[in-house]
Amino acid sequence: MTMRRVVIIGGGFGGAFTAKYLNRYAPRDWEIELINSTNYFVFQPLLPEVASGTISAPDAVTPLRLMLPGVKVRMAEVIGVNRAENEVHYLQGSKRIPLSVKYDDLVLAVGQQTNLSHTPGFQEHSLCMRNLADAHQLRNHVIQCLEHADVTEDPELKSRLMTFVVAGGGFSGVETAGELVEMIHRTLKFYPNLQSEDIHTVLVQRGERILPELTLRLGEYARQKLSKRGIQIMLDTSIQSATSTAVYLDDGTGIQTQTLVTTVGNGPRPITESLGIELQNGKIPVDEFLQVIGNERVWSLGDAALIPLGHQNCSQTKYAPPTAQFAVQEARCLARNIIAAQQDKPLTMFSFKPKGSLASIGNYKAVAEVFGIRLSGLLAWLLWRGLYIGMLPGFSTRLRVALNWLFDYFLPRSIVQIANNERPATYYRRYAPGDVVFRPGQLVDGFYTIVSGYLESRIADSAAGEDFVRLLGPGDHWGERSLSGNFETQGLLTAVEETRVLILKQADFRNLRAAFPGLDEYFQRISEKIYAPSLRSGSNSARNSESRGIQR
Amino acid sequence: MTMRRVVIIGGGFGGAFTAKYLNRYAPRDWEIELINSTNYFVFQPLLPEVASGTISAPDAVTPLRLMLPGVKVRMAEVIGVNRAENEVHYLQGSKRIPLSVKYDDLVLAVGQQTNLSHTPGFQEHSLCMRNLADAHQLRNHVIQCLEHADVTEDPELKSRLMTFVVAGGGFSGVETAGELVEMIHRTLKFYPNLQSEDIHTVLVQRGERILPELTLRLGEYARQKLSKRGIQIMLDTSIQSATSTAVYLDDGTGIQTQTLVTTVGNGPRPITESLGIELQNGKIPVDEFLQVIGNERVWSLGDAALIPLGHQNCSQTKYAPPTAQFAVQEARCLARNIIAAQQDKPLTMFSFKPKGSLASIGNYKAVAEVFGIRLSGLLAWLLWRGLYIGMLPGFSTRLRVALNWLFDYFLPRSIVQIANNERPATYYRRYAPGDVVFRPGQLVDGFYTIVSGYLESRIADSAAGEDFVRLLGPGDHWGERSLSGNFETQGLLTAVEETRVLILKQADFRNLRAAFPGLDEYFQRISEKIYAPSLRSGSNSARNSESRGIQR
Repeated sequence: MTMRRVVIIGGGFGGAFTAKYLNRYAPRDWEIELINSTNYFVFQPLLPEVASGTISAPDAVTPLRLMLPGVKVRMAEVIGVNRAENEVHYLQGSKRIPLSVKYDDLVLAVGQQTNLSHTPGFQEHSLCMRNLADAHQLRNHVIQCLEHADVTEDPELKSRLMTFVVAGGGFSGVETAGELVEMIHRTLKFYPNLQSEDIHTVLVQRGERILPELTLRLGEYARQKLSKRGIQIMLDTSIQSATSTAVYLDDGTGIQTQTLVTTVGNGPRPITESLGIELQNGKIPVDEFLQVIGNERVWSLGDAALIPLGHQNCSQTKYAPPTAQFAVQEARCLARNIIAAQQDKPLTMFSFKPKGSLASIGNYKAVAEVFGIRLSGLLAWLLWRGLYIGMLPGFSTRLRVALNWLFDYFLPRSIVQIANNERPATYYRRYAPGDVVFRPGQLVDGFYTIVSGYLESRIADSAAGEDFVRLLGPGDHWGERSLSGNFETQGLLTAVEETRVLILKQADFRNLRAAFPGLDEYFQRISEKIYAPSLRSGSNSARNSESRGIQR
Repeated sequence: MTMRRVVIIGGGFGGAFTAKYLNRYAPRDWEIELINSTNYFVFQPLLPEVASGTISAPDAVTPLRLMLPGVKVRMAEVIGVNRAENEVHYLQGSKRIPLSVKYDDLVLAVGQQTNLSHTPGFQEHSLCMRNLADAHQLRNHVIQCLEHADVTEDPELKSRLMTFVVAGGGFSGVETAGELVEMIHRTLKFYPNLQSEDIHTVLVQRGERILPELTLRLGEYARQKLSKRGIQIMLDTSIQSATSTAVYLDDGTGIQTQTLVTTVGNGPRPITESLGIELQNGKIPVDEFLQVIGNERVWSLGDAALIPLGHQNCSQTKYAPPTAQFAVQEARCLARNIIAAQQDKPLTMFSFKPKGSLASIGNYKAVAEVFGIRLSGLLAWLLWRGLYIGMLPGFSTRLRVALNWLFDYFLPRSIVQIANNERPATYYRRYAPGDVVFRPGQLVDGFYTIVSGYLESRIADSAAGEDFVRLLGPGDHWGERSLSGNFETQGLLTAVEETRVLILKQADFRNLRAAFPGLDEYFQRISEKIYAPSLRSGSNSARNSESRGIQR
């Protein structure tokens, strides 16, 4: 037998467990390398509990090196696969040096990513629940809302800050909504001006029931429990669009909110699309042995793969759902098949042995269906936690996590908001017609450019006795003056139609202009060009370009 | 007695304890408001232990609302004080709405910030140790270095990744170096290719001894312990400059490293400078009652204030050092004086009652001097931890923190690298003469502009049989092609003199160009202009601008 190198891309349930099983069953001289963008494995179902602070982030993840002794773990960003040369290309280190590694067998366990492009405003304004950074961000965002709601004197703003919308009624959405409500209730005592009845949480589900992964009875139990906790569940409803202050439903009604969490909308990662494999439904098609069709030494599993469930007596092919339980069983089958293929033994078809379903719904309650038995309430919740504890590597980690959970039961919930600097330098905001973009007196602390749509600027002109109004369209911008310090708007800026604005942070804008003397000229030139015709009746052609902006 | 409002700016030791004492001693109808940019109080001396993972971030901080029941806590960014109107101006919420609050008494407890501008390269390449985000960043950076060092095949790079330089031999620097070394030693078992002897930690101290805050004997004990742990201590040495790959000392020698932690160089915050108060040594001058000189109802304490120690029999005035212990005692004096002033009672002069000094040096050791008794080793360390536990609010928090520490003693150290997206869109790199900026084959994944200095680009030209060389100067840039995807350099780019480069991340660069059609033209125009004359002998005037870049 010759030495063999298996390279696994991805350290989620599929990839990490493939590495684990290969390490256990493969001949000793095989080299198993796992490449992942983080150095840890995330227990994804616990992310809502990280967001709510029930457990701390390090307790929801496990270092891959600790979980997989004997496996070569490489923290790097995979940028491509050359299947002709059996090579994986990746970027290594903070300077992102491009390197490559050869494989005998390749396992694509790259998962999926959230695709927010289908609904206007989701990309700009929704929070996700996919990785640890998402959970952190949601937590910080909610604490920010509570801090602000506690001190603001604007009742409309307060109500918006205390309204939380979750899109998607599957496992992730239900648990997120449940945990959010529990977290807010348990921290209210620190906010003297917030009352329990101020909280408004909405779960929006496109289908006719929540938790379609479970039986009808369990789903119904979960719905009742969530409703009792004060969560408004909207079934057969979908979100049509979102802005930074509202969510619009398909019946045309709007919900004023500053918090939208999206748990729906999955799509392929760029790496999946770059493989040169013809995807089906955005997934990598594999045969019943988990081999990528037409690629003998390339395998795939988990959320990234389209896996036929062959042994079912259906006329229509069924495919494996993207759950952790499936991924772990797929990993076991895949690892055995890689070894069998190399030893010229027959491969095993993937078949799923259901072991039960569990969903936490917050407040120490869960719903479960295990080996045909239905459970709900605290017992199900304890089972759910117990299963997770059992998956953790090492007694010590288990003990620590269990104790932290025990503490959480008795102790006040922490409201520490760890610094959240994740927002990139450029970001977008989306406005619906009529939305106020800037009010007089508001601070302009960045550089704003209209990407699409139109805004109306209205400045009270006491000398003329009437408002000075003009339209701003694509390419128009404001905030250049933020270079010399913060300043406040004097005009009212509202969206005339659906408008998308790009924002560049003040500090970065300053850096760029300082580095490019030419940019200064460019902005000078632009600000002198004639804008869209003014809407103001009467002549204002004498107004110089200075007075045309909204920032005076 | 009339209702009175005291506004405190800053939630560090000075501000938080002033609020605490005022809340305890002031008449019931006083309103005490504390404004801080985070909603938590940081126990600053523990930051190095957060960076090393001994304690988790939430355990080193306390929510201000939990610590200060009865005090109005406002999470906001203070942007100015109008002393004529007795108003504090601040930005509230994620949309940064400008608001203001009136005060009867104002307490300036704004602290200082790290000023890195004095040493070339510090701003671009050093990590700080001032707040929770800094500690997080250092931790992530070190784990990144270990992950990369474990898999790289370049011995020079590996040695650089395993070299850690700490600037400053005071409390913060010593504890940071000690904790770093302990963390790395304890995580080595996860990195099969890293050995204990690969680690190289250097502590650079300008003065002739470390821990000048302590007695000579204790400082010497700490020095011996750190040396035994393998930390190289360079006394009477200062760092002259830094790049992303090296630190240069005042004797001209360089240390190849990718990690520089700076614990020196404090200066006033922008808010302090904006007060219109004439600063002394960058601090707010106060009298012995902690009143800002010439401002009856404005008070200051902590690191931001220059506080005379009046009762000393010296010809030269001594000032309070910026330590937590001083700040807490100042807070007590200040709170009493605000109350006394309002009741027309005499004010109390600030005087300091030393209660001892403590410094943790890693590996469960500390040095201490308490009530005249000197301690070192584990006993001192337990005392140090005990004092902190005693300061935590509430039994529950104390128990949790104590247990986490206990676990750390027995359990393997976690190496989870929580997502670190803190780098802003634009950032700078500094290169020393001869430094390689890009090697052939390296990835260009952003837009690079020279701010100052000159780089030499050298491209092998097999057709001409000699290298094509040209100079790039201020305003020259490369990486425009990263818009259409990552690509690799073909030339070698080295610094001719000290050079500073501004980098804009690829994604942000794309967003900007997409939003500004005019920017495209601008870059087009720039790339067609004649660059600095080529250094290549012979004529190359026929080369078009395309072949002049380094990115082919």
